This record gives sequence, structure tokens and C-alpha cells, in this order.
Amino acid sequence: MNKAPTLWWDATTESLHYIDQTVLPGRYTVTECHTIGHLAAAIRRLEIRGAPALGVAGAYGIALATRVSWKNELNEFFSEVWKDAEILRTTRPTAVNLGWGIDRVLAKIAPLKDIPSVRRVALEEADAIFREDTANCHAIGNHGAELLPDTCTVLTHCNAGALACSSWGTALGVIRSAVSGGKRVKVMACETRPLLQGARLTAWELARDGIEVTVITDSTAAHLMRTGTIDAVIVGADRITHDAVFNKIGTYMHAVCARYHNIPFYVAAPLSTFDTSHEGKEVIIEERGREEVTTMGNRVFVPDAAHVKNYAFDATPMDLVTAIITERGVILPPVSTGSILSLKNTQ
Amino acid sequence: MNKAPTLWWDATTESLHYIDQTVLPGRYTVTECHTIGHLAAAIRRLEIRGAPALGVAGAYGIALATRVSWKNELNEFFSEVWKDAEILRTTRPTAVNLGWGIDRVLAKIAPLKDIPSVRRVALEEADAIFREDTANCHAIGNHGAELLPDTCTVLTHCNAGALACSSWGTALGVIRSAVSGGKRVKVMACETRPLLQGARLTAWELARDGIEVTVITDSTAAHLMRTGTIDAVIVGADRITHDAVFNKIGTYMHAVCARYHNIPFYVAAPLSTFDTSHEGKEVIIEERGREEVTTMGNRVFVPDAAHVKNYAFDATPMDLVTAIITERGVILPPVSTGSILSLKNTQ
Repeated sequence: MNKAPTLWWDATTESLHYIDQTVLPGRYTVTECHTIGHLAAAIRRLEIRGAPALGVAGAYGIALATRVSWKNELNEFFSEVWKDAEILRTTRPTAVNLGWGIDRVLAKIAPLKDIPSVRRVALEEADAIFREDTANCHAIGNHGAELLPDTCTVLTHCNAGALACSSWGTALGVIRSAVSGGKRVKVMACETRPLLQGARLTAWELARDGIEVTVITDSTAAHLMRTGTIDAVIVGADRITHDAVFNKIGTYMHAVCARYHNIPFYVAAPLSTFDTSHEGKEVIIEERGREEVTTMGNRVFVPDAAHVKNYAFDATPMDLVTAIITERGVILPPVSTGSILSLKNTQ
Repeated sequence: MNKAPTLWWDATTESLHYIDQTVLPGRYTVTECHTIGHLAAAIRRLEIRGAPALGVAGAYGIALATRVSWKNELNEFFSEVWKDAEILRTTRPTAVNLGWGIDRVLAKIAPLKDIPSVRRVALEEADAIFREDTANCHAIGNHGAELLPDTCTVLTHCNAGALACSSWGTALGVIRSAVSGGKRVKVMACETRPLLQGARLTAWELARDGIEVTVITDSTAAHLMRTGTIDAVIVGADRITHDAVFNKIGTYMHAVCARYHNIPFYVAAPLSTFDTSHEGKEVIIEERGREEVTTMGNRVFVPDAAHVKNYAFDATPMDLVTAIITERGVILPPVSTGSILSLKNTQ
């Protein structure tokens, strides 16, 4: 069975290849991306999604930008690359990793003096981010696996899996590592309306790995908590400030219900997801188009005269979070700049 | 605009007519039902749904059964009618009103001695239940409207509206009565996965009445509670025991989140919804087919290798309920047989 990463640089064609996540599980399609316009549209349409994968995509996006510019003069060349960076950066306002991946490559190339070196270094740095992302996911998995009982049922929301990263996953990385280590873990995957990343992506990648997965509607989670089916909740994150975790809409509801039922609520995310320069209330929650809610397949389910609100994310205040699982270890809330810096400095 | 009731007896054709709720809002279709097999299938497929509407459908179902039997001998005739009653009763296990409507007509006809009288009395009793249902909804509306602030945003789940009753509605009856009385009420309608009764039916009937309605995914509700958008939650009920309210899956999640945010959580239901002869834990929660979750329009969203759990209802323990709004007044939990009987005896 094909176990390609979620996205990768193809050296032969000098382009970014990615699994189109909008057509899974019905179709498995790898798309070649040769332009910044294509990449920006792919991110906006969620063909590539998931916070860590967006970091990798942003980094490779800059590598791509250094290849598509026709300018020969370095300042003009840089001006085009930086313009392309802003096009990519503004595709999604909530996830912080996208800008993090972009900025890390820009910082590496900014001091360079010739275009061939810029092209080489941009790709090297993007490749490094890709490799680190996979390593981070395995480290998150190992740290998180220790938190799970030997036999348990874990609830997850949306897709914080291999498809949200380069491979392995954050929340699903914890589950994969626990299973690899011999624990018996069953997964309840919330379908995650409106775009069904849980039903389409989480169920697909776990079933492919032979991990028992059951899809439920999002509102079934609380019922299963009440009846004692759920031992832990693990989700990913798109941005973590010191006071809140921003993640797929519905995460907050699960956190409130987990607290009510005394079930641990874990967030699994690399340190690149942390944003210590903003308060939670300053973060923009992306609102997306009504058609994502009103239309499915070939049918329209909402009358035209009704309004629709389609928030893509919500904020979970830190006091509802049991622990945050990072590649450098587990953070117990409250999160502070100090607690993150001290983790960053550990080996 | 057509404002027919949800279902009604057509004297000319001696058949039950109903609005097919599976094709709204795309198509408005009235279906004629001439056989018990058709009616049972219509209830099972949710062409007719909603607890009070099921009570009316059960009652008219017995009237229909007295017309389709070819037996001339009274005992054989009754035997067929009672067999038809069991076919109808077992279509949905959780809602109590269906059996209540059936039993009320059966009790009226059981003592009768000739088939023409049985046919006449069965229809008279079903008509009475139909009229009472509409009157009950208006009474529930008036009692409930007093609980709402003059200007407010109410969250509701599924469809406890005109389409769930003969007309007017229970939860939406409260909103209609409040609006009729001059209050400014906006409605947040949870789409209600998997079958989208909120998006399809609640949004359709409120927009048709000119009441401002916004459709959200079910998991958006908690986010709106946190941001101060929701002033009250009102839902219907399929069965109320002394210790729990059984209603559409997702109701429990809203109740937990409402409590966490100190938002009142109201249940609006006629007294026929109460079941004082069972504990909550004795009630069977209907599980429905996986295709309701996996398939929408022409697309399949869940891989075959994943399991699916599709509970149609959940149980909300009474301590999360602020008040139950009935046609005879408001019940404050805990609910007891005494509190219900004393209401039943009021004028």
C-alpha cells in the first residue's frame, strides 16, 4: 500500500508534490505543484491542511518561489520571493506554523548574495524542516504514549495525523506510538463538520494502519463520555498562546465535556505551534464560506433564506487542558514563555 | 405560501396525507398514505418524524388500520388492527408519543361492538389528538415565551418545530409565541448530524415565518456560548423519564456546555412525552444504519474499513435541565409522578 508522505519535494521536476486531501477517501491523488498561485489555492481549498504540514508547505513554498522567479538581479529576485511569501502567508489566518515555516526559510536566505546559493539554501532549509517535522512527530508520539493506559479508547477530533504533518502525526502520532509500543488503543474519530476531516482522513489513515477506528458524529462524543466509553481526548492544535489552544471548531466543546466527565484532555503539537507574542483574544478565528456547511455532494441542505456562520476554529482556554505534548516533553498548563523556552533548551 | 399542517387525514380518499420531511428544503412534497406498510416505512425512514407528530401519526395509523382490514367478524377485525398497531409501534423504539397515540385510540375502540362504530370512533379520537396537539403547542409556546428575555438569541437542536408536530411546534412553538408577543428572538439552529433536521427543517420553517435563523454546525454551539452569543437553549424531547430527557443525539452535549456557561437549558414537550413507568437507564437508545453517517448526497465520506456508531438519541440527566415547558405549565426538576399528575389535573 502506498505510504508516501503527505507532501514532498520532487527533485526531478523541481516541484512540490502532495496528496490531495479534498478527494480522500474516495480517491488517492498526488498533485504536482509548480507555481505559488497553485500552492496558495491548494492551501486555501484545504488540499494541503494541518498545522505542521502547513509549516512544511510554507517552507517548500519559499523554495518553489526561488525557482519560479525570472529576475536576475538579487534585490528584484528577493522582492519577488518576499511578495510570494506574503501570498502564501495570508491564505490561512489562524494556524501559526505556516508563517513559521515561511519565516524560517526567509531568515536563512536573506543574508545570501547570489541567486544559485539562495535556491540551494532555501531547499536545504525546507528539507530540514520536513525531516524535523517527522522526527518531532515521533518524539511527540513517544512522550504522549506514556500518558495512555495500556488498554484504552481515545477520542480525537479532525485530523491531527500523518496527513496533517509530513508523516506519523501529532495526536495520531501519540496513538501510533502507543500501538507500536504494544498498547491496545481504539480510536473514536469525530467526523468533524463541516469538511469531515475526521471521517475522511483520520478514519482512512488509521484503518490503513490496522488501528481500530470508529467514526461518530461530533455531537455523539459527549454521549460516549457519559457512558464511560472514552478514556482520553487527544487533539492537535493550529496555534497555542499562553492562555488558549486554537484548533478545529468543536475542540472547545470536547474540552468542556471532558472536564465535566473528568476525562483527560491532551493537546499534541510541535513547539512551532506556540505563539507567545499574542493573547488568545488577539487571534483571528477564520470564517469560511457558507457553502461548506450548506452543500454536500450534489445536494443543498440549507434554505437560501437562512444565514450560516462557519467558524473554522475555536479557542480552548488553558484551564481545560490537562497537558500539552510536544517533541521536547510534556507541558503542564499554565503555559508560559519560560516553560516553552526551557523545553526548547533541553536536548 | 402553503401552510398545511405536517400531516392530516383526508376524508375524501380516507387516507393520511403528510409532508415528506426527507426531501425538504429542496422539494416540498405531500404524500398520500393508504396502507400500514407505507406508514411504517415512512416513520422508519423519517418521512414523518418528531415526537408529537409521531403521536398523531400513530393515532391516524389506527384509524387507517380500521379502514384497510377486510374482515367482517369483529374479533378477527380487532386482531388485524392490533397486529397493525404493533407494526407501527415497533418502528421507533425511543420516542414514547408514538405508542401513546396508538394506545389512546385502541383504548377508545376496544369496548365497541360493531365495525362501523370502530371506524368512526377511531377517526374521531385521532382527530381529537390532532387538535389537542396543536392546542398543546400553542399552550407550550405561551408558557415558554414568558421565560425568554425581550431580546435574545436562542440555540436549538434538531427540529422541534411545526414539522415535528401537527403545527406550531414545541421548542419552536416557544420561539413563535415569543415573536408573536413582540419579543425579538434570533435563532441559532444546529444543523443536527447526521440527518440535518436543523439545517433542513428548522431553518426552512423559521425562514418561511420570517424569523431570523442562522445555521451552524453542531460543534459550533459551545464556541457561541463562550463568546456570549447564546441567551438560552430550547430543545424538544422524545421521552422524559423522572431522571432524564431523551432527545436527538447532541442534546446532552448542549446541556453540559450550557451548564458550564450558566445558560438556561429548557425542554419543551407535551405531557404525552412523559414516561413515569421507566428509569432512564431502561430506555433503549435507537441505533440507526451506518449509511446515514457515511453517505451524503452522492458521496461516501467514510472508508469501508472504519466502524460507525450512529446513536439517534442521547439522555440528558435531569440535573442539567433548567425547566420543562409543558402545555399545562412549567415543571422545575426534579420531575416526579406527583408533579406531572398535579399538572395533568390543573385546568
